[in-house]
Parts: sequence; structure tokens; C-alpha cells
Amino acid sequence: MGKYVYFFGNGAADGTGAMKDLLGGKGAGLAEMTNAGIPVPPGFTITTEACKVYYENRERLPQKIKWDIDEALKRLEGILGLKLGDPKSPLLLSVRSGAKFSMPGMMDTILNLGLNDETVEGLAKKTGNKRFAYDSYRRFIQMFGNVVLGIGKDVFEKLLEAKKKKCHAKYDTDLSWEDLKELVTEYKKEIKKVAGVNFPQDTHIQLSMARDAVFKSWNNPRAVTYRKLNDIPVDLGTAVNIQAMVFGNLGKTSATGVGFTRNPATGKKEFYGEFLINAQGEDVVAGIRTPQPITHLEKVMPEVYKQLKEITGRLEKHYRDVQDFEFTVQDKQLFMLQTRNGKRTGLAAVRIAVDMVEEGLITKEEAILRVEPSSLDQLLHPIFDPKQRLKVKVAAKGLAASPGAATGKIVFTADDAVEWAKKGEKVILVRSETVPDDIHGMNVAKGVLTATGGMTSHAAVVGRQMGKPSVVGCSGLNVNEKEKYVIIDGKKLKEGNYISIDGSTGEVILAQLPTIPSEIIQVVSGKLKESKSEVYKIFQKLLSWAEEVKRLKVRANADIPRDAKIAFAFGAQGIGLCRTEHMFFAEERLPVVVKMILSAGKGQEGLDEIESLKKRIAESSAEQARELKEELKKAEKTYGESVKDYTESLKKLMPMQKNDFYGLFKEMRGYPVTIRTLDPPLHEFLPKREELMVEVATLKASNSKKSSAKIAKLEELLAKVEELHEFNPMLGHRGCRLGITYPEITKMQAQAIFEAACELVAKKKMKVIPEIMIPLVGHVEELRVQKRIVVAAAEEVMKKYKVKIDYFVGTMIELPRGAITADAIAREAEFFSFGTNDLTQTTFGFSRDDAGKFLKIYQKLGILEKDPFATLDVKGVGELVKTGLHKGRSTRENLKVGICGEHGGDPASINFFHKIGLDYVSCSPYRVPIARLAAAHAALSERVKVAEGD
Amino acid sequence: MGKYVYFFGNGAADGTGAMKDLLGGKGAGLAEMTNAGIPVPPGFTITTEACKVYYENRERLPQKIKWDIDEALKRLEGILGLKLGDPKSPLLLSVRSGAKFSMPGMMDTILNLGLNDETVEGLAKKTGNKRFAYDSYRRFIQMFGNVVLGIGKDVFEKLLEAKKKKCHAKYDTDLSWEDLKELVTEYKKEIKKVAGVNFPQDTHIQLSMARDAVFKSWNNPRAVTYRKLNDIPVDLGTAVNIQAMVFGNLGKTSATGVGFTRNPATGKKEFYGEFLINAQGEDVVAGIRTPQPITHLEKVMPEVYKQLKEITGRLEKHYRDVQDFEFTVQDKQLFMLQTRNGKRTGLAAVRIAVDMVEEGLITKEEAILRVEPSSLDQLLHPIFDPKQRLKVKVAAKGLAASPGAATGKIVFTADDAVEWAKKGEKVILVRSETVPDDIHGMNVAKGVLTATGGMTSHAAVVGRQMGKPSVVGCSGLNVNEKEKYVIIDGKKLKEGNYISIDGSTGEVILAQLPTIPSEIIQVVSGKLKESKSEVYKIFQKLLSWAEEVKRLKVRANADIPRDAKIAFAFGAQGIGLCRTEHMFFAEERLPVVVKMILSAGKGQEGLDEIESLKKRIAESSAEQARELKEELKKAEKTYGESVKDYTESLKKLMPMQKNDFYGLFKEMRGYPVTIRTLDPPLHEFLPKREELMVEVATLKASNSKKSSAKIAKLEELLAKVEELHEFNPMLGHRGCRLGITYPEITKMQAQAIFEAACELVAKKKMKVIPEIMIPLVGHVEELRVQKRIVVAAAEEVMKKYKVKIDYFVGTMIELPRGAITADAIAREAEFFSFGTNDLTQTTFGFSRDDAGKFLKIYQKLGILEKDPFATLDVKGVGELVKTGLHKGRSTRENLKVGICGEHGGDPASINFFHKIGLDYVSCSPYRVPIARLAAAHAALSERVKVAEGD
Repeated sequence: MGKYVYFFGNGAADGTGAMKDLLGGKGAGLAEMTNAGIPVPPGFTITTEACKVYYENRERLPQKIKWDIDEALKRLEGILGLKLGDPKSPLLLSVRSGAKFSMPGMMDTILNLGLNDETVEGLAKKTGNKRFAYDSYRRFIQMFGNVVLGIGKDVFEKLLEAKKKKCHAKYDTDLSWEDLKELVTEYKKEIKKVAGVNFPQDTHIQLSMARDAVFKSWNNPRAVTYRKLNDIPVDLGTAVNIQAMVFGNLGKTSATGVGFTRNPATGKKEFYGEFLINAQGEDVVAGIRTPQPITHLEKVMPEVYKQLKEITGRLEKHYRDVQDFEFTVQDKQLFMLQTRNGKRTGLAAVRIAVDMVEEGLITKEEAILRVEPSSLDQLLHPIFDPKQRLKVKVAAKGLAASPGAATGKIVFTADDAVEWAKKGEKVILVRSETVPDDIHGMNVAKGVLTATGGMTSHAAVVGRQMGKPSVVGCSGLNVNEKEKYVIIDGKKLKEGNYISIDGSTGEVILAQLPTIPSEIIQVVSGKLKESKSEVYKIFQKLLSWAEEVKRLKVRANADIPRDAKIAFAFGAQGIGLCRTEHMFFAEERLPVVVKMILSAGKGQEGLDEIESLKKRIAESSAEQARELKEELKKAEKTYGESVKDYTESLKKLMPMQKNDFYGLFKEMRGYPVTIRTLDPPLHEFLPKREELMVEVATLKASNSKKSSAKIAKLEELLAKVEELHEFNPMLGHRGCRLGITYPEITKMQAQAIFEAACELVAKKKMKVIPEIMIPLVGHVEELRVQKRIVVAAAEEVMKKYKVKIDYFVGTMIELPRGAITADAIAREAEFFSFGTNDLTQTTFGFSRDDAGKFLKIYQKLGILEKDPFATLDVKGVGELVKTGLHKGRSTRENLKVGICGEHGGDPASINFFHKIGLDYVSCSPYRVPIARLAAAHAALSERVKVAEGD
Repeated sequence: MGKYVYFFGNGAADGTGAMKDLLGGKGAGLAEMTNAGIPVPPGFTITTEACKVYYENRERLPQKIKWDIDEALKRLEGILGLKLGDPKSPLLLSVRSGAKFSMPGMMDTILNLGLNDETVEGLAKKTGNKRFAYDSYRRFIQMFGNVVLGIGKDVFEKLLEAKKKKCHAKYDTDLSWEDLKELVTEYKKEIKKVAGVNFPQDTHIQLSMARDAVFKSWNNPRAVTYRKLNDIPVDLGTAVNIQAMVFGNLGKTSATGVGFTRNPATGKKEFYGEFLINAQGEDVVAGIRTPQPITHLEKVMPEVYKQLKEITGRLEKHYRDVQDFEFTVQDKQLFMLQTRNGKRTGLAAVRIAVDMVEEGLITKEEAILRVEPSSLDQLLHPIFDPKQRLKVKVAAKGLAASPGAATGKIVFTADDAVEWAKKGEKVILVRSETVPDDIHGMNVAKGVLTATGGMTSHAAVVGRQMGKPSVVGCSGLNVNEKEKYVIIDGKKLKEGNYISIDGSTGEVILAQLPTIPSEIIQVVSGKLKESKSEVYKIFQKLLSWAEEVKRLKVRANADIPRDAKIAFAFGAQGIGLCRTEHMFFAEERLPVVVKMILSAGKGQEGLDEIESLKKRIAESSAEQARELKEELKKAEKTYGESVKDYTESLKKLMPMQKNDFYGLFKEMRGYPVTIRTLDPPLHEFLPKREELMVEVATLKASNSKKSSAKIAKLEELLAKVEELHEFNPMLGHRGCRLGITYPEITKMQAQAIFEAACELVAKKKMKVIPEIMIPLVGHVEELRVQKRIVVAAAEEVMKKYKVKIDYFVGTMIELPRGAITADAIAREAEFFSFGTNDLTQTTFGFSRDDAGKFLKIYQKLGILEKDPFATLDVKGVGELVKTGLHKGRSTRENLKVGICGEHGGDPASINFFHKIGLDYVSCSPYRVPIARLAAAHAALSERVKVAEGD
């Protein structure tokens, strides 16, 4: 027979950290720490092999193993000078299960094993704390009764409650040691009654029963199910860890505390933590006594402090990461109870990673992997002053849509936001939902709060795009925009009242809270010098390392030069999506756009009709021509005005758009700029149908003569709006369908793009790479007809400027049919960009504006684990992305393929995009650093897999 | 050198019908007919080999071939006793190209070759018709000038127009022979001027030039392009067919006519046609003289008549199909000018196919293939009396959405339709669009006419479902439903005015037109005895043959027993889709449904909350329980009323639904019945949001005190409607999402299904196969949670009735994600039914309610060939269907898979569904025969392919 019991203690262990199979994860860890000279409470591990033998031997342990255990126990008693069951110096033990993989359902922990009616008195004497001793005894009996004897927790809870009631105690802590002693008696009686056995006073029997209970827990139904679900082999078995309990409450020479090897909030290299003299671990957390800063330990116990600093420093080196540790000093002897990698803020994560590289502790690659990409967000957005934050109550909670803290006065409309902002007020825009023509208001607001909508609702997307703190879908809100008030948490707030929102947590606070701005944003937007910001320096350093390893390019979605500038500063390698229509909402443009829309239908029809007639006239005999000329006159009369409105408004829009594109190209300094032609349904630019209907009805009912002209005008507008009204606008007349029905719009946009590009090349000798992207293509023919228009415009403008530009015409793949027929589409498309927002909508059949209602329930029921609009649904939508990519490249080998949906800024999704072989991701400017880091993570995780031969 | 010229005439030909390669299609056909003893005008074919030699020989024909041609010409002259260029008895010729494949772009025909200034006089004398002779000459010069000499048609047209103007002639026929003679002179001058050569008076030169022109036309740019596009080898070459002209206008012993070997309208075996004595072919069609029925020919020319009957009978046998023929009698001699398979109505097609099988002419399989499945439709729907139809004008044209003729008085609302129908009026429901709560009106109307919507709009789908003639998307309509008038073609029609619509053509007529009802429908619906309808008998016979060969099963989409009965009579092998919600709109049910909907949200929440509290109470300690009981009281108070409304209305609906299902099961006599759980968004059952808004606004503005209570009530309703309002209902809270958020509804429906099934089994000992179908599943978990509810209800009800029923729980695959993850879904689903309507919507991103606007333009531009909602888009949607099918069967080998979208009744789509291996298609009851026939076609076309080794 081999070795079944592995001892650890006094600076040496039988096992090593590599023996996870045999000792389980926990046992291997204890052996590793002991070998590293870390003073952990000594003990021993009964191996997983013993567990197997236990089962093979009809659930009995062979005598040989029992003897080994006795021997280990004796060694343990020797080291500590204590003895299991000794009434004067009782050794107390913890018993824990520990398999190779941690597994819910298996027995967790029994503490204080070794207490009985006698030893409890010994403990009381030793600690000078009767209440502590009897409370420990009560807890042990409870755990033992529940875990080893299988008695329901409620049985003990009932007795405890009854006791508290009897003693008029509100909390457990109100019970005296006498009460607890009585309770111990009652517990024991109840055990006898329920389980039919006496609670064992023999401490060795306690130990062997606990040991067997651990073995048995391996075959708990919950553990069995868990193994099945996670493909864990049934024959691994569990180890049992038996370890001495240590006490920090044995007088002035004892203590207990917690700490970090570096500041987890800032990342600075400073010893950080708290401790209490003569206390148990719980006391530090419970907040009954105020702990002292760990630096004070140096004064009280200089030796221990020195040892602790040395040990934790070693631990940090050993684990090569910040340690979050717990320790206990038992009569001047230091024991490390736990150490683990410490949680930290984003800022701390970056600083620690960079520092550790410079300290030679970790490699650059490790530094990259140490920082969660999404945590970079915390470095970019203003945050509430944490001290102020604790003083106020959270009134409601919504979805944390766009991170950052914001505080200001409530306004209810975009126009009000602009007006108040002009007066220098900081405002929060509070609305039921936002729509595209709220953009000017969102732009000036400090934050946005909406009652409806999900993580990809308009408010959320634009919020993130703008880097604007936003809380959306906050169902606790009752917004009345008309009468300008909102009810939150039962309180009615009016326009001008203060409110604060935290877009990182979704919290809403009914007060003015001061914020701390982000240094990095200040640097990027040119308000702070690079050299003045240390945070910026480490941030850039980490990203430069990420740049070295990542394969995916990262671009930004940006519509205006200001956003492009920020994107460039954040390291974007191009613009992946410029939404041309976002510029249409500008105050001076909207009237022109509206005029264009109102005339587009008849205008385009007229243009086509007139052109066709002119062509026929040119080809006809004189007589035929005469007739056709009559027809032409008629057509010009019928369509003339619409054609004029249509072409004139397009002519006005052209230089405006040209100017937009000029700025974008300039800011991107030769990187490619992808410009999408007009996409949203045209009715988005017009007043809302139902509002017009109500206005007309109200005017009519009020029966005033004055209003008849107004009614007529409104009805005319309403008729047009009705014409454009759709039942499902998301599946309606939008995307390339607009450019196909109104080719003049595509032509105008293409002209504007090439005018801008040529001018920049001709005048400034700058490099420009325009990529014209046709949206919502499901059929190659759609792309073909649009591409023809773009190419014609390009040739014409380039000829005019005498300039040659490398440009590309491509498409968004955002419909299932686009992905499925990507091989055909790639015959025309020079690049693909996956629009995963729309693709998610159509693949699932979820409207992102409406799905919030049932998606909540879906997540509650576990039907969907994640919001598919936030993290790409790999099995469904991802499958289509893969199909589209492979089919596209099957036709055009070097097809450039990217993605510009919301998922372009989501680290999990970026990992997927890297894996399948996309060329780039594009996301909002403020997510560019996150995407860069995530792309580096993806590349590194691939390396690891290759190294592992996966 | 081989043989380059093949003669045909006098009952014998050098070639045969099989020599298409050598003689071209036309030449081989002429040889075949001649050999079969059919008197075709004699002539000869210059082979495709000669064409090759012509090109090899630098576009010259070797002398040997020219000699062969001269010889053949002499033989021709000998047979007819005429001579090319003979002024007295001129032989006139036609010259035609004829390659192996017919090819646009190649020279078509030159007629009357052989006319010159002398022979034209000979022709005039012979026919006694100077005008005819000169008109023939003029036409010949024109054709020759254009085709052989390459002069633009407009050149001659201009001269003709000038001549007409000069002579004050309105039509060509107003010109005298003198005018035409002058025109001939002018034509010749113009040819000299434009082409620089004289028009050849030498008839042999005419012939050789025409012959070479045919050869040259092989390499016309249009012909070259066509060959490239259609993969026709360039080296095939064309043959030249030179054939004698014959004249039916040489006096009383000459005639010309057209005919059919059987009646093309009814299919009856009767000689059918018309003729004119002393006339040219054109005259029969031109309508200047009234032709006589062909039977009169027996009196006038008994010999010819006998010969014609014998020949056409022989032709029918030879081609084994009805022949549509043209003939000319030239001086007692009969010539067949053309014969081809005759076009026929659906009724005729069926009768002819069945008769021909019984005559031993064709096989059953051929009979099946002779009938276009979609033409069966014509047998099922009433039609307008064709004679009456010709007398009226078509005022507007829409989409032919649901075939059949209907006439009646105009009504503008569903309620009006019901009211008028009760008074015994026949009404046509005219609306901008129809919505689900118009169903009761559509049900009583004779036909439906809408201004908007496409082939799968609500009106169209329900129209076909009901077999109700419908014209939709008729943009010429201007409907004002409120003031109850419609403007069509400039005329204002009010309620009660007559209108007629033809759902087979989309035509709208502003009059009352009598209709002829369909016998088959009368039989199927039990109004006429089977034995009384001969049409029904042949119809059934054909379908029984189809049944023998088809592999696909055909089911029907039917919601109510009456439809199920018809479906069964039409041979449906089950119900593939019962839409449970269609029954919710019944007058007595709607209020219950509305109550259920208004209480569902809070009701379900309350039920869940109360149930969860009760559970916790049962598991809690006494003290905890006391607190929880307080909470329970509160919950009962908060939710009590909603829970009551919700559960009580569901309780009321249960027996109603049970009754529906009972009827369906009974009618289907043991065939499977697929019942879909609730699918449409709930707001469809409530008043429209914007209408409520307008009503409230109007009431508020009118400022009457009386209305304040009404306003409050309306606002309450509006609030609920607002809550249910969605931006894109098609992608919103519908399908299984309803059953998941309101599980009580699914439970009620499942109970109703199993109560009905069990009762039928228990009481009537009938076999019942319920298939419960969960709609709009995109994720297996959705199905899992719904299936659990269905199975629980099934077990409970079966236990209650002590009955065991074979039932299946499956799903619709109607979302891309459903198809993509079908392998996972098939773990739960016991059957799949593809919902290709929704699948088309999401795959293309087209809302079928909105796509009409741009789909028209798409079809005009050739972006899409067919409406994807009518015929399945094989490359996109079809690919997903295939993926879903294969993935589904990869998990569950014997998975039953069908399709229940609109495409289930479309023959082209059925062919695809057969090919990929679905088990069944399901379509509206009235399309079941079409689908059965189409399924047989699909099976037969596969056989052909297998035989061809494809």
C-alpha cells in the first residue's frame, strides 16, 4: 500500500503544489504554501486515493490508513503542543473536502472539531472568553449535526429562535454564555431525538465521522449532477484536509487581520490593511470594534509585522500578483489563514500590471492578461467621490448602459437641455425613451436617464458613443414629459431638481453628488498635457504592449470630426462606421432634410419619368417626338415642383456632407474611413404620426375658425407621414432600400465623399482611403445597383479634380440572407462589415426596442444567459458571421472583413471575432482602448492554446 | 463533300425530325411533318454544316452547295408549277433562320421573296387583288432593306407616314394600290440613297442575298451575347429554311383558318375553330370580316374539311396533345402552316389529360404533368360570365391575391359587412387594409378589395385561406373609411354601390357582373352530389393518379371545423396548422379575450408571487411563516383582482377552445392535427393606440363635462394599450414569448386540446393525433419550458379521462436562429414545421406589411425576380430550411418535418420541399388539390432526372 496521508507544517510538507490529482486543489495549495515557508496552520491531507479505497472497501477505511492518520495527528499535536480532546490544551481542527476541481454540493467545512463538554471549558479558560467558547461549541454541534448526521438546519434554527425569544434577545450576540450553554444541551437532546444517536463526546470519533462524511459527500446527488453536467470523471474522488484551528483571541499577544500587498484602489505599492488585537477573524469584518491600520502593527508587534511584510512580499512574488491575505497571530506566532490574488479597480489593475513588469516580476504578456479589458472603462469616466456616495440613498436602479457618474438638474426635453445648457446649467436628460432627434439634447446633457429600453436602446448606444453616462430601462421611473415631472421612489421631482446617476452601476440618486473627472479623457481631449498625467502614461504603456501582440485591428464608430479625433488619440486604426444620417439632425440641416424627404417620392418618380421621356425623344422619329414632347411638358408640370424641391435640397445637403467627411478624413490621417450611406427609415426625420393625429384632432374639436389653415397644413404633413408610416420600421423601407428607391440620395452622398477626399488630396497632399459601405444588403443585386451609382460619382469627381484615389465599395452584412449568400455578394463587395446589432435582431427575431420586456423574464428563467445585444450569441448569430466570412472569402480571397455592431466593443465578442479570423472590430471611440486590450487578450489566449496543443 | 440541302414536300422529306443538329429545330420539324404526311408548303433546308462551311470559306458558299440549292429550287418549282421570277406564275418564298436552339437576335423571317416590279403584276393578276400584291411587295422591300441591307426601320416608317399624311389616310389600310405602288418607288430610291445599292430585281439574287443574311445573323452581336449567356456553343451554326409561300386569297377555292383539335375552354373533344374563304391569314385575326365556324367548312369544301380533320387528328396523335393549328387552302389544296400544343384553361387541361389517358394516348404520369398545378385553381373559384365581362371596362388593377370572381355592394367596415349580409345583401369589403378583427366581415363578404398590402398581406392570406376572392394593393384606390366613400378611376363610389373584382387577374370593375359558380366547390361543400358533377369526377380522377406518384404528404391550414371538412374532402392528410387565436375574434369571445389580456401582466405576476410565497411558507419555521403570511395577504390584496380576472377569463376560454379542437379532430378522422399555441402580439386584440389617442384628445378638446368619466375610462384603456405598444410588433412580444411570460395561457390551451382529444377517444372511440406546436422558437430553452407545461397538462387530463393518447410536442422553425440551432432544438422537438412566412421576413429583413412599397421597385429593377413571400427564395431562405432540416435530423433521425407557410401551396416551392426531403407541406384548404398535383409533379420530375442520370 502507498502513502495515503500527507503532512504539512513547520516549514515543510510531504506533498507539493503540483499534486492536485492526489491531494485535491486545496491540499496541494496548503503543501505549496508550507514548502514556500509560509506559516500556515499545520495539518495533513488524506488523499483522493484513500477516498477510492474507501469506496472500493464498501465505505470503510482500511486499518493501515487509519493508523497513518493517527500518526499524522500525533505529529500535529506535537508541533502545536496541544492534544485533541485534552481538556486543558485542546487541539481544535477544521475538516474540509478538496477535490481536483472545486465542486458545489460537496461538504464544505467543519470548524472547531474537537470541542466537547470538557474541552469547551478548557477553551474558555485559555481564551478567557466563556461566551466565545460556548458559541464555538454551539456552532460546531450545529455543523456536525447538519453535515455529518444529516439533520436539517431548520431544526437547530428553531431552537435558536426559541431561545432568543425566551431571552428577549434580538440578535444572536445578545445571548449570554449561559444561554448558549443551555442551547448546547438542547441541541444535543434534539440530535438524539432526530438522528437517534448521541452527539459524540469522543473527539476521535468526531474526527473519523467527519472524515467519512467528506468521503460520502463525493456521492451527494448535487455533486453527482454537477459532475455529469461538467464532464468531471466520477472516479477522481475527494481528499480530506484536516488542519489545526488557530486563535487570535488568546490575549494581548494575539491578533487577527486582513490586508493587501498593494493598494487595491489605486494600485500604488503600499502595504494596505487592518488588524485587531485579541480578536477573531469575524470581529474585523463585523465592525463592532474599529480595526487599526496595518502599519500600527509595527509598533505593537514589530517582529510579527516584519515577518508579515516579508511573508506577504514573498507571497506576491510567489504568486506574481497582488495578494489579499488573512492572518492570525496566536500568542506571538503568525499564521497565514488565506491568501489569494486581490480584486482591484481598473486603475489599480493597470498600475499594478505596469509596475510589476518594471519590477521584473511578470512579462508584458502577463501584464496584459492581468487587466480585464472592460475595467479600463473605469479609467475613462468620471466617478462619484466615494466618500460622498456612501452618505446618500439609491432611489432606483436601471441598466448600467454607459459608464460614468453624472450629476445635474433634471430636464425633460432635448430642447430644454440645450436651453438650460446655454445658461451654463449642468443637466441630466430624463425621458421615457430617447429618439434620434434628441441627439442635440443628449449632446449637451451630463447624463441620460430613461424609463424604457435595453442595453442597445437608442439612449444606451448613443450614450456610449458619446461617452455619456447613461442609465436606461429604469422601470422605477414614471416620467411625464408634458407636465415636466418624474416620480421616483414615490417622490415627485420637477424640472430643475437635482439628480445623480451612475452609469457604471445603474444607480439613481436624488441629490447632487460631486464627481471626479477622468485624467485620461482630459489628456485625450487635449485639456491636460500628457506629461502631467501619470495615469495616462501607464495606460498608454499597457496599450502599447497590447498593440505588440494583438492581431485584430481596432477601428472606431465616429460620425463627426470631434469623435474621430478622440478615436485617433485612443489608437483607432481607422473609422469602421460613419453614420451619415446622424449629421442630418443638426439644427440648420433638419429643415433641408425634411424638405428633401417630403419631395423625394414624387421627385424621384418625376426625374425618372422626365429622363426616360427625353431619351425616347432622342431616339424617335419627328412625329413620335412631337407627341412625346407633349408628354414631357405634362410630366414637367406634374412633377416640376417636387423635382425642384428634391434636387435643390440635395444640392444644399451636398456641401454640408462634404464638409463632414473632409473633417473625418483629415482627423484620421490616412487611415481608412468607412462611410455608410443613408440608413434609417425616413419617417424618423419627421414629426411623430400619432402626435400629429392628436394635434389635428384637438384643433378640429376646439372648433376655432383661426385654426383651419393650420389644420390644412398639418393634415398635409400628416398625409405624408402616413404614407411613410410602417408597421415594422426595422424591417421596412430603410438601408439600401432607400438608396435604391431614391438613387439621387446615394449619388449626392457619394459626390460629397469624393469631393471631400479629392480636395484633401489635391490641396493638402494627404492620403485618404474612403470605404463606401452600402447598408442592409440581402441580395447581391441590391449592392450592384448601388455600387454602380457610387463608382460613377467617384469617376466623375476624380476626373474633375484630376486626382486618383484608392477607394473601396463594400457592404454591411447585417441580414441572415446577406450572410447566407455572402459568396454571391462578395462578387461585388470589396469589403464586408458585419452589423451584428441588426443581425442579432433578425436572427433572433427580437426588436431591440421591444425585447426588453421579455428578455428580462428570459434571463430570470435562464433561457438566455446573456443579453445577446451586449455579448454576441456565438451559437446562432456567431454561426452566421462565420458563414458570411467563409463564403465571402471563398469568392474573394483577400476580402477585408470587420464588424461594426455594438459587439465590436465587447471583450467576449472580440475574442470570438479574433478566433474566426476577422480583420478588424469597430466600436465607439471610448471603447477603443478596451477593444485593443481585448484583442491582445484574444491573441494571447490563442498562444496559450497553441502551446497547450489545443 | 456531303449533303448540304435537304428537300421536303409532296409527302416526303430528305431529313427527319431527329436531325436537329443538322437542320436546326425548324427544319427538322418541317421534315418530320412532311414525312408524317402533313401537307406543309414544300421547300428545302440548307444545313448548319453549310453555315460552318460558309464561315470557314471566308463568308462565301462553295459552288457545289449553290448548285445543290439551285437543284432543290427547281424541284420546288416543279412541284408547285410555279417559277421564281416568272412574271405570270411567280413562286414566292419565305426565308427563315433555324438553329438547334431558338435564339433571339438571329434573323427571323423574310416573306414574299421573289416579288419584283414584274412579278408583282403577275401576283396581282393571279389573286385579282392589286392592293394585296403591292402591299406584299412594299412589305417585302421593307423587310429585305432592313434585314438584308441593314437599313433602319425608321427610314421606311418615315416614308410611310409621309405618304399617309399626303393621302389623308389614318391607317395603312386607307392607302390605295396606287399609293402603295408610289411608296414602292420611294422605298427603292431610299435604298439606293442609304445603302448605295439598287434593290435587286433579280429574284435569284434576292434569294442568295437573303440566304447569306441568315448565315451572317448567326454572328449578330445580340445572338453572340445570347449564346454566351446561355452556354450555347459558337460552332453550331444556323440552318436556312426556304419554303414556298401559299395563298388563301386566290378566289373561292381558297381559304384560310385557325383551329384547335379540342375545345380549349372546356376540354371537350370537339373540332373547334374558324375560317374565311378567299382570305389571308391576317384577315381572320383582323376582325374586318367575320369568320365562320370551322364546321361550315364541311359544306363549302367537304374534301378539304375531311382532309383537315384527318390531318389534325393525326397531328394530335403524333404530338400526343391538343393541337392549335393554322391552315391555308390554296386553290383546293390544303396546307398546314403551323401546329403547336394548344393553350387551355385549367378545366380544359384536366379534362383533356384525363380523356387522353382513357383514349390510350398518354400515360397517367403524362396526364399529371400536362396540368399546371396552379391552373387547378380555376376549377375552384367562381368566374365572371366571359360574355358579360367583355362589355365592361377595367377601372383599376391590383394584385391578384385570391382567385375567383366576386360582385356585390361596397361596404367599408367589417361590422357593416356583417349587418348588410344579415339583410341578405352580397357585399364586397373595401378597405385601405384589413386587420385581424376584420375577419368576421371578410367571412361574410363575397370578396375583399384593399388599397395597400402585398401578396401575403393579411387580406391576401386570409382571403386565400377562406377561398375568398381578393384583390389587394390596388394603388388606384383612394379609400375614406370614415366618410364611407372610395375614389376609383376618378369616380366616387359610396357604400351600397356595385363593384366587381376578379381575384384571378386583379381587375376591378365598377358594375355588377354575374358569376358562374364552381361545381367542385359545390360538391366538396356538400351542396351538389358527386355523381351530378362530371367536372368533379375528372378532377378527382386526376388527383387520384397524382396520389399514386407523390411522396410528399399534403396537409391543410385550418382553424375551424368547416375549413377542416373542406380540406378533408380535398384530400388533406392532416392539419398542418391550426391558428388557435383566430377563434379569439368571435363576437362572443372577444370581450373575454380582452379581459384576459388586460389582466394578464399583473395576473401572472400575482399568481407567481402568491405561489412562491405559499411554497416558502410550507418550508419555513413557524416564526418565518408568520411574516410570510403577512406578505401573502398583501400580495393577495395587490394582485387579487387581476388574478381573478386572469384566471376566470382563461377558465371561460378553455371550454370554447376545447369545443373548437373537438370539431377539428372529428373532421380529420384520425389524421394528425397540428395546433399552434397563441402567436400574435396581444395588442392585436385591443383597440388601436392612435385611434384611442385621437378619441381622448377630441373628447378633451370638446370640453364637455359629461365626457370626463368616459375620458378616464378611455385613458385607462389607453395606458394598457401603450404598455403593450411595440415599435416592431413582428419582432416583439409574440409567439412562444407570450406563453413564456404568461404560462397560464399555454396551460389553458393544452388543457383544451387534451380535453377535446380525450373526450373524443373516450366517447366516440375515434383515433386522435394531436401535435402541439410552439411558435417562434429560436432557442431550445424556449421550447423546453413550454413543452414542460404542455406535457404536464397532457398527463393530468389523460389521467382524468383514463385514456392514453399518442401526442407530439414540436415547434415552428421560423427564425434564422431556429434553423441554425435546429440540432439543439430537435433534442426537445418531436416535429418541426417551417414557418416560411416569418422565416422569409427575418432572413430578408422584410416586413411583409411594409415591403410592398419597395418590392415593386425591386421587381421592376430586376433585383428580385419573384415575390419571396409567394415563391420560396431558394438561395437564401431555402438554404436555412435545408440547414434546419439536416441539423434537426442529425439529432433526431426520424424527425417529422413539414412546412406551413404560404409557400406550402406554391408549386415551385413544393418542388423544392420535395427535393430536400420534407415529409409534408401544409396549405390553405383550397390549395390542397394544387399542392397534391404539384407534389406529384415534383416526384415525377425527379424520376425523369434519375432516368437522365442527373
